[in-house]
Amino acid sequence: MKNLCLLGSTGSIGRQTLDIIHRHGGFKITSLAANSNIDLLEQQIDEIGPKKVCVYDKEKAGILANRLKNNATEVLSGMEGLLEIAGDSTNDLTVTAIVGMIGIRPTLAAIEAGCDVALANKETLVTAGHIIMKAVKEHKVNLLPIDSEHSAIFQCLQGKYGPTGDYSAWDGSKGLEKILLTCSGGPFRGLSYDELRTKTAADALKHPNWAMGNKITIDSATLVNKALEVMEAKWLFSTDVDKIQVVIQPKSIIHSAVQFVDGSIVAQIGVPDMRLPIQYALYYPERLPLDCGRVDLFELAKIEFYKPDYDTFKGLKLGIEAAKKGGSICTVFNAANEYAVGRFLKNEIGFTDIYDIIEHCMSVHKNIPEPTLDEVLGSESEAVDNAMKYIAKR
Amino acid sequence: MKNLCLLGSTGSIGRQTLDIIHRHGGFKITSLAANSNIDLLEQQIDEIGPKKVCVYDKEKAGILANRLKNNATEVLSGMEGLLEIAGDSTNDLTVTAIVGMIGIRPTLAAIEAGCDVALANKETLVTAGHIIMKAVKEHKVNLLPIDSEHSAIFQCLQGKYGPTGDYSAWDGSKGLEKILLTCSGGPFRGLSYDELRTKTAADALKHPNWAMGNKITIDSATLVNKALEVMEAKWLFSTDVDKIQVVIQPKSIIHSAVQFVDGSIVAQIGVPDMRLPIQYALYYPERLPLDCGRVDLFELAKIEFYKPDYDTFKGLKLGIEAAKKGGSICTVFNAANEYAVGRFLKNEIGFTDIYDIIEHCMSVHKNIPEPTLDEVLGSESEAVDNAMKYIAKR
Repeated sequence: MKNLCLLGSTGSIGRQTLDIIHRHGGFKITSLAANSNIDLLEQQIDEIGPKKVCVYDKEKAGILANRLKNNATEVLSGMEGLLEIAGDSTNDLTVTAIVGMIGIRPTLAAIEAGCDVALANKETLVTAGHIIMKAVKEHKVNLLPIDSEHSAIFQCLQGKYGPTGDYSAWDGSKGLEKILLTCSGGPFRGLSYDELRTKTAADALKHPNWAMGNKITIDSATLVNKALEVMEAKWLFSTDVDKIQVVIQPKSIIHSAVQFVDGSIVAQIGVPDMRLPIQYALYYPERLPLDCGRVDLFELAKIEFYKPDYDTFKGLKLGIEAAKKGGSICTVFNAANEYAVGRFLKNEIGFTDIYDIIEHCMSVHKNIPEPTLDEVLGSESEAVDNAMKYIAKR
Repeated sequence: MKNLCLLGSTGSIGRQTLDIIHRHGGFKITSLAANSNIDLLEQQIDEIGPKKVCVYDKEKAGILANRLKNNATEVLSGMEGLLEIAGDSTNDLTVTAIVGMIGIRPTLAAIEAGCDVALANKETLVTAGHIIMKAVKEHKVNLLPIDSEHSAIFQCLQGKYGPTGDYSAWDGSKGLEKILLTCSGGPFRGLSYDELRTKTAADALKHPNWAMGNKITIDSATLVNKALEVMEAKWLFSTDVDKIQVVIQPKSIIHSAVQFVDGSIVAQIGVPDMRLPIQYALYYPERLPLDCGRVDLFELAKIEFYKPDYDTFKGLKLGIEAAKKGGSICTVFNAANEYAVGRFLKNEIGFTDIYDIIEHCMSVHKNIPEPTLDEVLGSESEAVDNAMKYIAKR
């Protein structure tokens, strides 16, 4: 029985994590954290009985604490609360399913407490990969990817890591020739830049391959999401960005692949269902049954591959440039995009304006090669400021 | 430095094995065996200086011994010679690259001597899988597949075996849901049975995806080869035949795949080059550089999948039936096919006659569920006799 801390228990990844643990057991859930959904969190507390919970929103935390006054579960709040539950060294595994940059410090706290981390928070590696990976190696913990693509790469690299999952000892340069990071191409694949300009949020939110939140659905349409994944893969698998090749594969059936130095490619294929990477990370290296759908290769009939159109989908090109540079420019790329997508979702800017905003923010940023966490947060604010001003001035 | 015995050193797999070892080192080659090509064997002896060699053909062995009389290398012959070099317990790895049923006893001798085996001999598992796998478990050795498809499956199963390659302890029923054994479909994919009837050896030998010998090229056209691979996979991966699905994938790019109980499929992809599975087996679990071509997914553009046409390509259906039954019927399937293909290559029978001959020999055979080696050899002779009579009577 392993002790588990679940950060972001009321979100989609968090709820699926609880479902999987409910089915397969093996974990004692010691703590939960949510942003503000205290109704669902209260239900989860009733079912699980964790020692501690954290509600990031202080006001909501107070309301919940009041409701739970006769309950053994302690209610914490804010970043202090997150750091307290994540930093508990009696935990064996922390699932970071928090959205946004607030995930970075609790993730680091878990690693520093010697706890393995299953990571579903993009920003952690995108903005602070250099800090996180150093801590992973220093504290000899496993960092298990929950993102679908990175889980696929991780699955394909088995036999390099081995079943003990000694991730911290792994040297990405040994044996690995190339990472083939697959990408659906998004709903606007094949369009010209001029066609892309006219696309609205409503257009982009139609028919994604994966059921996702609005922000990430837009990121999938702009291919900015793929650039963020390149940044994550670079850190997770200690790989040069030059060795990461983005491959458009519209049906999202191959979740990614790796090519070894002997030319052998190993690919992971599956239906789009986040429970697979979650379950794999939770029970790694075991494979447990999962009632997700099965890919029927005969029904599928074919898998097609295309080169990404970097000139049209400029966000991918900009992100790969940032990934190659490294440093605070990656935070700028991420923050400028996040701000721009927020405005796009309100129909306040056009689709390709997202690219222009990212490009502008990157061009005015003075890159810090190895930023501290404070410098990361500073670069974020700077990027948001610059994005805001750029939009106002147009 | 590991001691290596190479059975079949003058054949295609044997020569490629020597090339790879020449490049990467790590092995001291203690013994070589060849059927009759003593000129090439003599060259290999000059280069390598093995302690012992075996020439299966006794007359040729005598000629070579005479030529080498001032040489430190001892020349053995026949099955006794094969058993002596394969059964040397100072060997760490024996590569069985002998063609045909004479490979069975030396392979067993190596296993019983506690030696790992890299297996490129189909007949060993097809006809004596029950004996071989029992010996593998008893002597706790690794049986490393060199066949392209089985190497692919083995590569995809990493993380189940783990890098220590503790193959003997592996339980195929755990975690594995399905093996997807891929198949090019051969040159006659899509044809009707009536069209198939008219095909000649010359038609079948045109344009294979892999450069292979004539016999296996015909087996690839009839899909009998795939049935033999189903039998091998059943033994190698301790899997029910029902869990092995044959998938037609014309470009032979996916070399095979596995599906785990969580629905995740892991596939191995590569150019058709036997050096990859040979090298993987030799240096397992390491991946060393190999200058074979690389699959370019963009150039490839797509991978297509089709169901096998079991009614037209009856040999596949018959072979899967035999695989399900197990026992000496698998030897009959193999021997009847081998004899029939020999006659087909001489243009003495038609393409679909191969199926009729196999079907006839299977129908008149009284299956022995767990045949001894003598019974295996008896079933072989019986099948050849029956095939011969069947053709004569038509």
